[in-house]
Amino acid sequence: MQPHPVAIVGASGYSGLELTRILARHPAVRLTAVLSDRWAGERVGSRLPVDGPAGGLAYSALAGAAAVDAELAFLATPAEVSADLAPRLLARGVRVVDVSGAFRLRDASAYPAWYGFEHPAPALLGEAVYGLPELGREGLRGARLVANAGCYASAVPLAVAPFVKAGVAEPDGIAVTALSGVSGAGRKASDEYSFVEIDDDLRAYRLGRHQHTPEIEQTVARYGGRCGPISFTPVLVPVRRGILCTAHLRVKDGVGAADLARALEAAYANEPFVRIRPADKVQVKDVLHTNRCHVGVALDERARIAVATSALDNLVKGAAGSATQAMNAVLGLPETTGLDLLGG
Amino acid sequence: MQPHPVAIVGASGYSGLELTRILARHPAVRLTAVLSDRWAGERVGSRLPVDGPAGGLAYSALAGAAAVDAELAFLATPAEVSADLAPRLLARGVRVVDVSGAFRLRDASAYPAWYGFEHPAPALLGEAVYGLPELGREGLRGARLVANAGCYASAVPLAVAPFVKAGVAEPDGIAVTALSGVSGAGRKASDEYSFVEIDDDLRAYRLGRHQHTPEIEQTVARYGGRCGPISFTPVLVPVRRGILCTAHLRVKDGVGAADLARALEAAYANEPFVRIRPADKVQVKDVLHTNRCHVGVALDERARIAVATSALDNLVKGAAGSATQAMNAVLGLPETTGLDLLGG
Amino acid sequence: MQPHPVAIVGASGYSGLELTRILARHPAVRLTAVLSDRWAGERVGSRLPVDGPAGGLAYSALAGAAAVDAELAFLATPAEVSADLAPRLLARGVRVVDVSGAFRLRDASAYPAWYGFEHPAPALLGEAVYGLPELGREGLRGARLVANAGCYASAVPLAVAPFVKAGVAEPDGIAVTALSGVSGAGRKASDEYSFVEIDDDLRAYRLGRHQHTPEIEQTVARYGGRCGPISFTPVLVPVRRGILCTAHLRVKDGVGAADLARALEAAYANEPFVRIRPADKVQVKDVLHTNRCHVGVALDERARIAVATSALDNLVKGAAGSATQAMNAVLGLPETTGLDLLGG
Amino acid sequence: MQPHPVAIVGASGYSGLELTRILARHPAVRLTAVLSDRWAGERVGSRLPVDGPAGGLAYSALAGAAAVDAELAFLATPAEVSADLAPRLLARGVRVVDVSGAFRLRDASAYPAWYGFEHPAPALLGEAVYGLPELGREGLRGARLVANAGCYASAVPLAVAPFVKAGVAEPDGIAVTALSGVSGAGRKASDEYSFVEIDDDLRAYRLGRHQHTPEIEQTVARYGGRCGPISFTPVLVPVRRGILCTAHLRVKDGVGAADLARALEAAYANEPFVRIRPADKVQVKDVLHTNRCHVGVALDERARIAVATSALDNLVKGAAGSATQAMNAVLGLPETTGLDLLGG
Repeated sequence: MQPHPVAIVGASGYSGLELTRILARHPAVRLTAVLSDRWAGERVGSRLPVDGPAGGLAYSALAGAAAVDAELAFLATPAEVSADLAPRLLARGVRVVDVSGAFRLRDASAYPAWYGFEHPAPALLGEAVYGLPELGREGLRGARLVANAGCYASAVPLAVAPFVKAGVAEPDGIAVTALSGVSGAGRKASDEYSFVEIDDDLRAYRLGRHQHTPEIEQTVARYGGRCGPISFTPVLVPVRRGILCTAHLRVKDGVGAADLARALEAAYANEPFVRIRPADKVQVKDVLHTNRCHVGVALDERARIAVATSALDNLVKGAAGSATQAMNAVLGLPETTGLDLLGG
Repeated sequence: MQPHPVAIVGASGYSGLELTRILARHPAVRLTAVLSDRWAGERVGSRLPVDGPAGGLAYSALAGAAAVDAELAFLATPAEVSADLAPRLLARGVRVVDVSGAFRLRDASAYPAWYGFEHPAPALLGEAVYGLPELGREGLRGARLVANAGCYASAVPLAVAPFVKAGVAEPDGIAVTALSGVSGAGRKASDEYSFVEIDDDLRAYRLGRHQHTPEIEQTVARYGGRCGPISFTPVLVPVRRGILCTAHLRVKDGVGAADLARALEAAYANEPFVRIRPADKVQVKDVLHTNRCHVGVALDERARIAVATSALDNLVKGAAGSATQAMNAVLGLPETTGLDLLGG
Repeated sequence: MQPHPVAIVGASGYSGLELTRILARHPAVRLTAVLSDRWAGERVGSRLPVDGPAGGLAYSALAGAAAVDAELAFLATPAEVSADLAPRLLARGVRVVDVSGAFRLRDASAYPAWYGFEHPAPALLGEAVYGLPELGREGLRGARLVANAGCYASAVPLAVAPFVKAGVAEPDGIAVTALSGVSGAGRKASDEYSFVEIDDDLRAYRLGRHQHTPEIEQTVARYGGRCGPISFTPVLVPVRRGILCTAHLRVKDGVGAADLARALEAAYANEPFVRIRPADKVQVKDVLHTNRCHVGVALDERARIAVATSALDNLVKGAAGSATQAMNAVLGLPETTGLDLLGG
Repeated sequence: MQPHPVAIVGASGYSGLELTRILARHPAVRLTAVLSDRWAGERVGSRLPVDGPAGGLAYSALAGAAAVDAELAFLATPAEVSADLAPRLLARGVRVVDVSGAFRLRDASAYPAWYGFEHPAPALLGEAVYGLPELGREGLRGARLVANAGCYASAVPLAVAPFVKAGVAEPDGIAVTALSGVSGAGRKASDEYSFVEIDDDLRAYRLGRHQHTPEIEQTVARYGGRCGPISFTPVLVPVRRGILCTAHLRVKDGVGAADLARALEAAYANEPFVRIRPADKVQVKDVLHTNRCHVGVALDERARIAVATSALDNLVKGAAGSATQAMNAVLGLPETTGLDLLGG
C-alpha cells in the first residue's frame, strides 16, 4: 500500500513538533511538507531525533500553506489562521485535520465571545466532524474536515460524559478544576511564561471564560444527551506537559459507587486509549508521551458528589496523538496505527 | 520586657524547621529548647541560617518533651504524639500551641474515622481554642491550649467562609479542589514522595477522605453560621510549598459580582495577613515565605457559581507562621509581631 | 525469523522499567519473563503503557532469576546481585547483558575500593565484553556476557576520548563535572531523595570517589591509548533524567578549534546514536527519551583548555537503550533495531 | 539616628525586587524612590509583601533616575545604563552602589571584548571600589562608587582564592564549571527562557566567553597574588535561583587535605556570611534567601586536584544582599545590618 502523503502546517509549535515526531514514524503516511516560518530552511533532523527521509525534509515558509502537495494537511496554527487556510485547502481537494479551535463549535455566533473573532467560514462549521472518537466517531471515516478536540475539551468530557449519559449524575451544576502544564499555552516569548515566573507557582486563570468551555459543554451534551453550563476553572502548574482534571458532579438519588464504576465501564470497555483507574491513581506521569487518557471516579457519600478524574498528555492525547488518531479514522486505518507510544 | 521562654517539640519536621527560623528572630520570645530525635546533639546553627544564642542551641531528644522548661511549647509532632504530650505539658503549667490535628475537632467521636485513633483526652477538645484568628480570635488571648489550623483548613475556609457568612452563597454543595506542595505531606522517606515519582506528575489523593474535611466544615459553620458537607479533593503537585484552593459555591438568586467582592471586603478589610486580589492573580509565588493568604473570587454568571480562590504557604500561614500568630495572640502581643517576612 | 526470547531481572527499577518499554516493542525479541519482587503478581500492562502479550506478562519474584527461560537475560540489579546471578545464568547457557557495574572493571582488585565488595567471580571479568559500541564494538557479536557501560561512564568517555585518541589533548589532568538527574540514583525510599529535599537544590556528591571513575579511565585509555587519573565531580540536579557532562582538557601546543572538531568528526561520523553539536547546543532536552548522545567542544584559547560537553538520557543511552544496542550487537542485529525512539 | 535615604533604580528586575524586599526592612535606611518603567505608578505593596511607608511608595519612571533624592542609589540596571547614570549621580553628590558590571573591571580596554561596549567613563574605573568584602574590604568605608561583585564572580573567587593565597594550589590551569538558576539571566521575555524550554533541560552556555571571567580572574589575582586564565563554563539548570560552583585546581607537591582545610579556615574564620562545610554538603538549598556563601573542598589524591565547591543565592549574596552588605560598609554600619535573613 502506498503511504498517504501528509503535510504539517505550523510545525514548530509544540503540537506541530509532536505531530512531526509521530508522523515521521507512522507506517501508513509519508511526510511531504512541514511548514514553519521560524525554522524555514532548517531540516527536521536538526530539531528532532528523526532520521531517514522525514529527517531530511526542510521546513518551508507558512506562505505556501494553501498550496501544499498532500492528501491531508494538519493545521497546527492559531484558530484565525486555520479558519482562513482550511477552506482554501479543501477547495484544492486536500483533507484537513485542524488542531486549533477554528471549527470546533457548531454555533458560529459563539466565536466572537469565546474566541474574539467573527468566523469567516460559518458554513464549514456544519460540515466539520469533531475529533474525539471515544465520545463519537460517526462521520470521521472519509471526512474532509476534522475539528480535533481541544486538550481540556478532551480531558473534561472523557471524565464526566459517561455519568451524564448513564443518568447517574445531574447534567447541571458540574464544577471542574483542571490543571495544565505550561505547553498548553503554546510557545510563548512572554515574561509571563518564563521559567522564573512559572516555577514554584500555582494560579488559576481565565476563570469561567476559557474558550474550551462551550466546546466541553457541546461534547458532553452530544454524548450524554444534555449538559447545563459547566463552571470551568483552569489552573496553570509548573510541569511541561499533562492535564489533570477533577470534576464534581451531583449524583442522583440512590446512585452508589458501583453505578458510577459501571458507567465508566460501559463507555470505555473497548476503547484502546482510555483506561479506568482508581480515582487517586489517575496520574499524569502514567500517560505522558502516550495517546492514553486515564479516568477514574470516587463517590463522596457525605456530599453526594461524584469526583471524576482524568489525566492525559496535552500534546499527545490532547493534540498531536489525538489528531493522528482522527487521521487514522478518516483514512480507514485502525485508530491505533502509529500510536503505540513508549510513554516515559 | 523579658522575652517569653518557648520550646519547639518536633523541630526537624518541615513545620518545626520553619518555626525555628521564625522564633529564632522573634523579638519577644527566647528559644529554650528544640527537640528532635533525628538531630539530637547537633546545633540549630548547623541546620539553619541562625546565629546568636538560638543558633548555638542543641537539639535534644523527644523523650524530654513533657519536661521542657518553657512558658509555652509548640508541638510540631504527629497528632497521636501531640494528644499524648499536651495534657502532660498543661499539667505542668506550660501553654501549648499544637500544630497537629490532635485538638482541632470539637467532636471526639470524629477522630477514629478521620484520624484513625481514639482520642485519649477528649475533655481537652472543649478547652482547646482554634487557631485561625481571621475567622475567629475570641478566646485566644490567654489560652492554655491552641489547636492551630491545618494548612488546607486555613486555605479553604479563608476562601469560602465570607460568602456563606454574608449569605450570598449556598452553604450546601460546596466543591473544592485544592493543590498542595509536597512539604504538606511532611518529611517522608518513602519511594512515593521521591523526586523521580513526584516531579512532572499531578494526581488527586484521599478524595473525600482527607482528615482536614471535618475541620474545614467546622470552621466554615462556626464563622458562616452553617455548612453542609463539602466535597474536598486535594491534589499533589510538584512544588515544595504552597497551596492553591479553587472552591465552587452556588450563589443565591440576585447575587452579583459586587456582592461577592463586598463579602470579602467585609471579612478581611482589617486583617493584616489576608489580601484580596483578582481571582486570577491569586498566586502561590506572591505568598511564599510569608504569613499571608491571598484570596479572590470570580462569578461564573452562566453557571451561577462563584469560584473562590486562595493561596498561602503551607509551612508559614498554613503552619509555623500561623502558629506564631496564635502565640502572639495568646501572649497579648500584636498578632503581626515577628511576622514581617520577606517572601521570595 | 523467530523472535529471541529475553528476560529482564530487576524490572521495577528505573532501568528495568525502561528496558521493558523498549523490549516490549522490539521487533526481534519476545519478552518471556520480567522479574521484580516489588510487583510480583501484577501485570506489565498495569504499570506501563504496554499492550499485547508483553502487557499481559506478570511480574515474578527474583528468586527465580537463575532459572529464567530465555536466550538472553538483562540484569538490572545491584552489582552484588548481578555478580552472583551472571555465572549461574551463563552456566545454563543464557547470555547476559548486565546493566550494573559488576563486570565493568577488568581489575578485580578495584572492586573493594570502588564498589565495596570482593568480586565473587573474577575469572568472568576477563571474558565480559564492555558495552559502549561507539568506543569499541569488537567482541560484542556473539558475546556470552556484556558489561554494559554506566551512565556517567558513557557520557564522559564519549565526550573526551576522541581528543585523547587524536592526540590533540593531554591524557593527564582531565577534570570533569557532570550533572545528573535523580533517576541516576535508582529508586530510592530515602528522605535524602525526596522531592522536598531535591527540588530547588544543587549539590556535588562523592567527589573523587564515584565508582564510575575507574571505568571512565579504563574506557578512555582503551580507546585513546592512555589516560591519567581523572578528577570526576558528579552533581545532583533537580531533573528526573538526563546527564550533562562538561570536561576540561589541556590542549597540546598548536592545536586549534578545527583540530578539535576533526577529532569528533573522525570518531563519530558514522555513528547513528552520537551527534555533534556546538558545545552550547548540547542540551539534555534534545536527547531525552532517545538513545542518542550529543557531543560538542569549545576551545578556550586564553586558558588553552578544551571544554568538551556531552548530553544523554541516563535511562536510555546511559542504561536501557544502550543495553538494547549491545543486545542487538550480540545477536547480530543492526545496532539501531528497536531504538528509533520519539524523544520528547 | 536618622535613617539614610536610599533609592533603587531598576526596581522591577530580579535584583531590584530583592533589594526592595531587603531595604524596606533595613533598620538604618529609608527608601525614598523605586524606579521602574514597567511598574511606574503602581505601589510597592502591590508587588511585594511590604507594608508601611515602603509599601506605599509608588514606582516612578527611569527617566528620573539621575535626579533622585537620596544619599545613596543602587543601580540594578543593565551595564550600559549604569555606566551612563553613575557619573551623573556622583556629580550630584549621590553615592552609588552599582549591581551591574559597569565598573567592575579595572581595565577599560576589556569592556568592548567582554561587554560589547566602549566604556564611557573610564576614569571612574580607577575610583570604583569593588564590592566583595570577604576578599577585600579596604576602601569600602566612605566610598562614593561601589562596583558590586557579579554572582558568578562572587561564587567562584570565594571558592578558589583562599587556596591560591595560601600557596597550596597552582594559580594556573584552574577549570571551573558553575551551575546557575535561571534568574541569573534577569527578567527575560524570550522563548529561550520559557518554562517549557528550560524545565527538564541542562546546558552549558557562553563557554569561555562569559563576561564574568575577567572579573573572576581579577579578584583571585588581587586576593591571591596571581591568577592565570581560568577556564570558566557556566551551566543553566532548571531552578529559579542559586549558584553551585565546582572548581578544579592542581595542588602543589606535598599539599594534603589538612592544608586545604587550613586555607579556608584562614580566609573565612571571622566572616559572618561565609561558612565552611564538607564539599559534598555545600548545597544551594541551605543558602537560598540568605546572604550566605557556603564553601568546601575535597582533595582528589589520585588526580592531585583540589575540587572546591561553593553555593550562594545569586539574587542575595550574588546581588542584592551583597549590595546591601557593601552599602553597610560604605555607611560605616556593621556589614550584617539588615541581613539576618530567614532562608528557606
